[in-house]
Amino acid sequence: MARIVMKFGGTSVADLGRIRHVAAHVKREVEAGNEVAVVVSAMAGETNRLVALCREAAPLHDAREYDAVVSSGENVTSGLLAIVLQSMGIEARSWQGWQIPMRTDDAHGAARIREIAAAELLERFARGQVAVIAGFQGLSPLGRITTLGRGGSDTTAVALAAALAADRCDIYTDVDGVYTTDPRIVKTARRLPRISHEEMLEMASLGAKVLHVRSVELAMLYDVPLMVRSSFADPTIAPPGTLITGEDMDMESEVVTSIAYSRDEAQITLRDVPDAPGVAWRVFGPLADAHINVDMIVQNISDDGTATDITFTVPQGDFERAKAVIEGARDGIRFGKLAGDTEVVKVSVIGVGMRSHAGVAATAFRALGEKAVNIRAITTSEIKISVLIDAAYAELAVRVLHAAYGLDKAVTDA
Amino acid sequence: MARIVMKFGGTSVADLGRIRHVAAHVKREVEAGNEVAVVVSAMAGETNRLVALCREAAPLHDAREYDAVVSSGENVTSGLLAIVLQSMGIEARSWQGWQIPMRTDDAHGAARIREIAAAELLERFARGQVAVIAGFQGLSPLGRITTLGRGGSDTTAVALAAALAADRCDIYTDVDGVYTTDPRIVKTARRLPRISHEEMLEMASLGAKVLHVRSVELAMLYDVPLMVRSSFADPTIAPPGTLITGEDMDMESEVVTSIAYSRDEAQITLRDVPDAPGVAWRVFGPLADAHINVDMIVQNISDDGTATDITFTVPQGDFERAKAVIEGARDGIRFGKLAGDTEVVKVSVIGVGMRSHAGVAATAFRALGEKAVNIRAITTSEIKISVLIDAAYAELAVRVLHAAYGLDKAVTDA
Repeated sequence: MARIVMKFGGTSVADLGRIRHVAAHVKREVEAGNEVAVVVSAMAGETNRLVALCREAAPLHDAREYDAVVSSGENVTSGLLAIVLQSMGIEARSWQGWQIPMRTDDAHGAARIREIAAAELLERFARGQVAVIAGFQGLSPLGRITTLGRGGSDTTAVALAAALAADRCDIYTDVDGVYTTDPRIVKTARRLPRISHEEMLEMASLGAKVLHVRSVELAMLYDVPLMVRSSFADPTIAPPGTLITGEDMDMESEVVTSIAYSRDEAQITLRDVPDAPGVAWRVFGPLADAHINVDMIVQNISDDGTATDITFTVPQGDFERAKAVIEGARDGIRFGKLAGDTEVVKVSVIGVGMRSHAGVAATAFRALGEKAVNIRAITTSEIKISVLIDAAYAELAVRVLHAAYGLDKAVTDA
Repeated sequence: MARIVMKFGGTSVADLGRIRHVAAHVKREVEAGNEVAVVVSAMAGETNRLVALCREAAPLHDAREYDAVVSSGENVTSGLLAIVLQSMGIEARSWQGWQIPMRTDDAHGAARIREIAAAELLERFARGQVAVIAGFQGLSPLGRITTLGRGGSDTTAVALAAALAADRCDIYTDVDGVYTTDPRIVKTARRLPRISHEEMLEMASLGAKVLHVRSVELAMLYDVPLMVRSSFADPTIAPPGTLITGEDMDMESEVVTSIAYSRDEAQITLRDVPDAPGVAWRVFGPLADAHINVDMIVQNISDDGTATDITFTVPQGDFERAKAVIEGARDGIRFGKLAGDTEVVKVSVIGVGMRSHAGVAATAFRALGEKAVNIRAITTSEIKISVLIDAAYAELAVRVLHAAYGLDKAVTDA
């Protein structure tokens, strides 16, 4: 017997046919003797419809009222799933955020979970009842409804799994797991049977859509094993997937687990910046003040040691604003020339094994060099090497790196 | 300054254009210095959509889950109206049933209100805040969401008006008041400036759609003045309507205030029933056991005092079932023949002035007799005379009675 949290997103509960399919997945786990809590999103399109109504009501609207309106989508799905489960002979009841309660702070629209009352749910598990929980929502200290923002239902599921001390949190989605890279680019990309929380976090940060950064962070913090699996699979058989856990010995055998890429990058280069103490602060201080998220930062030493070039990247949506901020700080920075480019892509090699293996970066540089892919900037972390390259070379670079680290070879499920 | 509860139904909040119009009505009352609570229904069609989803999920579904799903329609409207009011510079916040809380019993799907916590709302009125309340819903003793069933939002509004000791409960709807009779039948029908709770109750019982019986009963019980007015009227001017209050001296001047009719009637006549003690019990006991609502009952004395005829009416939907129940009880009743007819209509003359005026019924009988309308059965109450007639004569009878009691003559607003 295990205690499991199952999470189903909007496409998995898009209509009653899909909800019945979800119920069959739940039934399988219940019949296996497991204690089950199910977290559901709103039916596909419903949250967008409600958000549009709020915007139409007033472009600048009270976030508390927005939350009251938008949270209703999950209330509908949780009630419907409870009805369908009951009709299949499974004892189930729905829970809205305020009923549990799922206590959050009062940052409406992007609330953070503070505390989840688990006792009542645990008591009902013992009686064989399935808890069907409206995701994405909580209760503020003042008794208003909050929503958790982007990736909210994933966050609900992971936080709940932590509060319930669940053995596993299964994230059912429209893909059957996490891949070594984007299968649309590399045909030989394969599903990873397991990866570490940290690797998943890097991949999510780089725009892998399968899980939101925030839910992975939470899973890492509370050491919740996540399983990404397909809700569209035959519900009578536990679908394979990707298990995302803390590191263990096994994992170190694979140096690199995946190649990720992000097109949402814009490069800004400042030429001839005086190489004096405090110059970085004069460049990045104003950007931070403007809430612009700077990612890669590269500072080259100039030939004569008096002036330097600084290159950094920002999200494409902030490109024009970032340039304006820098121009506005020109007197303080005293740079020569500002050059910018949005035709860039960041490609990253990810693997916890990098920590204990030398020469991992060299493999990437050699592979890219052989294909004449010019590297504009490089940043590294303990478990990641990222390179900024011309956007035109994106697919080529992903394929070259995927092959260079041997990710094409099949690995069986653990 | 007055304290007012305003209620807007589904067609009045059908889209954001209509919701803005509602907000303008609210603004007018706020700017007149009033304390305002607004009760809203779900956007037109939304409740039906949610009910259909529950039925599709399972024909026999848990009423608690049904309530959790269906109540979300009102949550959306209350949030949207709060947003629109705020955008017009009016301080407002939404309240869901559990937030107030609006405590009910646990009869899910048809819950009855037990207690409404008013203190917090009153404190916010004092600060100038408008309360926007999701109608139709409450909180059960076990902390589940309940819905109030048919006429639920009207009931919410009246109960709230009682709890807040409001000066008036304005029911905004798609008609501009209560009429002397159905204007589709009688062109000279006119809006009544005022009527009593009791008269409205009789009219609602007879199928007048403007207010649900339950909300009128509640208004009568707690002496809440109701005002029926049009939500489609120019919102910058307080629209005229019909004020429904307890009786006062003024009202007695009008003997009859309205002519109502109901087509939802079926007549059953039992011939040659032994005229012995307990016969009524033997007829109506089995019908009551079958939860069939019997309305008019007429028992004639037979010529020789040994056998009688009993005629009664039931709702048309219960006609076949009622006949079966009576046939099943044939041995106990020992009637001769059972005759039934669904081509009947009940026409009623209503007016609190009947109490103190003689000859009111005679006027009706003479007027109908002059037009050769055959009366099948008559019942009377303190403030109502109802006749059962052939359905073919329905419109004629309504017109004749409307004229006979002088209801065509114009009366100005009080």
